[in-house]
Amino acid sequence: MTTFREDGTAAVEWVASYLERVRELPVLSQVEPGEIRARLPATPPERGEPFEAVLRDLDEVLLPGVTHWQSPRFFAYFATTGSEPGVLAELLIAGLNQVGILWRTSPALQELEELTLDWLRQLVGLPEGFHGHIEDTASTGVLSALVVARALQPDRRVVVCSEHAHSLADKAARLLELELRKVPVDDEFRLRPELLELEGACAVVATVGTTGAAAVDPVPAIADACEAAGAWLHVDAAYAGSAAVCPELRPHFAGWERADSIGVNPHKWLGVPMDCSALWTRRREDFRRTFSLVPEFLQSPDDAVNLSELSIPLGRRFRALKLWAVLRCYGRAGLQERIREHVRLAALFEEWVRDEPGWEVVAPRHFSLVCFRKEGSDEENERLLERVNGSGEVFLSHARLGDRYALRLAVGNFRTTESDVRLAWDVLRRESSAS
Amino acid sequence: MTTFREDGTAAVEWVASYLERVRELPVLSQVEPGEIRARLPATPPERGEPFEAVLRDLDEVLLPGVTHWQSPRFFAYFATTGSEPGVLAELLIAGLNQVGILWRTSPALQELEELTLDWLRQLVGLPEGFHGHIEDTASTGVLSALVVARALQPDRRVVVCSEHAHSLADKAARLLELELRKVPVDDEFRLRPELLELEGACAVVATVGTTGAAAVDPVPAIADACEAAGAWLHVDAAYAGSAAVCPELRPHFAGWERADSIGVNPHKWLGVPMDCSALWTRRREDFRRTFSLVPEFLQSPDDAVNLSELSIPLGRRFRALKLWAVLRCYGRAGLQERIREHVRLAALFEEWVRDEPGWEVVAPRHFSLVCFRKEGSDEENERLLERVNGSGEVFLSHARLGDRYALRLAVGNFRTTESDVRLAWDVLRRESSAS
Repeated sequence: MTTFREDGTAAVEWVASYLERVRELPVLSQVEPGEIRARLPATPPERGEPFEAVLRDLDEVLLPGVTHWQSPRFFAYFATTGSEPGVLAELLIAGLNQVGILWRTSPALQELEELTLDWLRQLVGLPEGFHGHIEDTASTGVLSALVVARALQPDRRVVVCSEHAHSLADKAARLLELELRKVPVDDEFRLRPELLELEGACAVVATVGTTGAAAVDPVPAIADACEAAGAWLHVDAAYAGSAAVCPELRPHFAGWERADSIGVNPHKWLGVPMDCSALWTRRREDFRRTFSLVPEFLQSPDDAVNLSELSIPLGRRFRALKLWAVLRCYGRAGLQERIREHVRLAALFEEWVRDEPGWEVVAPRHFSLVCFRKEGSDEENERLLERVNGSGEVFLSHARLGDRYALRLAVGNFRTTESDVRLAWDVLRRESSAS
Repeated sequence: MTTFREDGTAAVEWVASYLERVRELPVLSQVEPGEIRARLPATPPERGEPFEAVLRDLDEVLLPGVTHWQSPRFFAYFATTGSEPGVLAELLIAGLNQVGILWRTSPALQELEELTLDWLRQLVGLPEGFHGHIEDTASTGVLSALVVARALQPDRRVVVCSEHAHSLADKAARLLELELRKVPVDDEFRLRPELLELEGACAVVATVGTTGAAAVDPVPAIADACEAAGAWLHVDAAYAGSAAVCPELRPHFAGWERADSIGVNPHKWLGVPMDCSALWTRRREDFRRTFSLVPEFLQSPDDAVNLSELSIPLGRRFRALKLWAVLRCYGRAGLQERIREHVRLAALFEEWVRDEPGWEVVAPRHFSLVCFRKEGSDEENERLLERVNGSGEVFLSHARLGDRYALRLAVGNFRTTESDVRLAWDVLRRESSAS
């Protein structure tokens, strides 16, 4: 273990030093497709090399091909954080190398997963009665929920969502051979409940915090319609759900407690490293009936519901350990503090945009995402975004809202400060006047 | 970063010390269902705590609930290893916290994933023309392959496999609303190709190294039948595939190069921490046509096939980094050495069983799994297994082969030595005479 201790110290030092310098690195990787692969040998090594060779090549070969999601200047998509306790927990997870299949293959994994999901349920203000487990991503979570919804009503072959729902609904419908019915949105990009048509629908996917504009679908009205039609309601709150840790933001989540299943991604806005997607359901027994398959080789004398009976993969990582580490090391107060700061920074940026002639905010801001644009054509805004991202100083992304191209600034990295947001605004204005 | 460096040193020390003492810990956790959860607070913490509190509770609260997959005395299911370079790579993966969605969100992730899967393809002796990517588990891999097979021939609603195929085939068929047709096996637990009936079948799942007995289906004959019937052939070599790194074991893999898709789990027998399941296909464009959905917010000016266009989740972890670290630090020679040692140890154990009156080997041994039993009833063997596992000294599992209950000893941990295998045999004989 001498080598492991030395290599481990070097790996910790590498990560520490990376996190110290990441703010200064070009946020969006500046390489061309194929460039990284071309720098590496085309054939595998014959003999083993020391771990330090891995660290060296990580710096010299791979790093230029890294888009820095850990950068405080990453404002694209939804910004994330691999927080320090979460990063170190991944080391412990790998060191323990648990494979959660049956309860007995790792009682600690299963019970900590159920416990931390219950902690998180309490933190986001959901009532008792929801059972939670961890999926890799929200895509798999919604797929799983729709498998259950379809199994309950196999003759209903339609899933309904707004035209602003995430493409995960499209993908799940395709995999499950269901028709996806998209409902138009209002001028704030929310599903228009008066246009909901649930005939033949086994499920509705409502979104709190859409990918494009972080819009909030009218969940209470959708829940009413689902109840009347006997359709499953899944609430996708992959990004915004973490905000429910702050009571003052809970009004956006009105009605989600009526859902049959809910997805929230702690790997998005809660400091947990990729991947960790929470899936709660009030219908655990339906999940179990749909997914459970315990073949002979897995029969065991224990009387416990195994988490593998609730989801697609048979074996699971000890992801609960990183969620636990993050919840322990931040606590409710620490998480609230960070989310409030991100919302404050987004509000500040929004104010700068509103106050600047020639710029406009193009969607209501509820959380930490600002959608905006410069006056001019879509193409001009698109080119502006490419120049901004090409500078490497900050990284933003875009959306199409209604018929317009919008720029998106998403605050979500725990290390982002007001000066990082200020820099984004400075770069945007500089590049827009350079056109 | 001072705290991170200190906490990181403590975490590395924790893992090092864990790996030093894991051999002496009870392999199968000895707790009762609910015991671990009951030791933890039912509500989340209000304030953050130092990371050392996490490490302390990991030792004091969680560890008794851990079944030690890292123990050299773990012989159940298929034994695995989180090797040192793989464990440390997980720290780097979390430190970088890449989210592979589009190529541009992490060029290094995508290109290293494609490269390392090509290295692994070469190591296991597969020809060029197979494109590889990483899935979480073989269950998801086979589900993805069957989604593609079904999409190609939507009117064919049958999947065929042997009655000894892994339950992943059952689960995938259920999720995809396909009928699963199970073909009987011969007295060596191999699919009987003369009983293959492919009318209406869109796919066949053949297994090299079944879960129960590590049996090898006759892939060349199955490939002939698939070709004649126009059915997709998936070869599930989740466990055994790693053995193909050794040329002398390649004859077991005859014909797999004719598959449309192949699954091998480096997290099983190749030292990569959970999870890392390789999926190769000769039909990448079919995968892309089936899975690709690039919504507006993900449109980018780059011209690359994104890995998210080939699989269910949209975002992926930088798993390639741990596979790369393991392949670099062991090299072909190092991996061959470990696999050969495991096969030698299994052969030795097999010999001990054969030489001992009252014991018998009940399936041919091809790799590192021995299936055996003591004379007497199934119930007696079942009770024997419970006593052995209840001792905590070693952990084995079972299978039902034909109409008989069989004990399974699977060698697969990189730290397992001859004395660990010897111990397993001693405990088995001791407990069998104590009955």
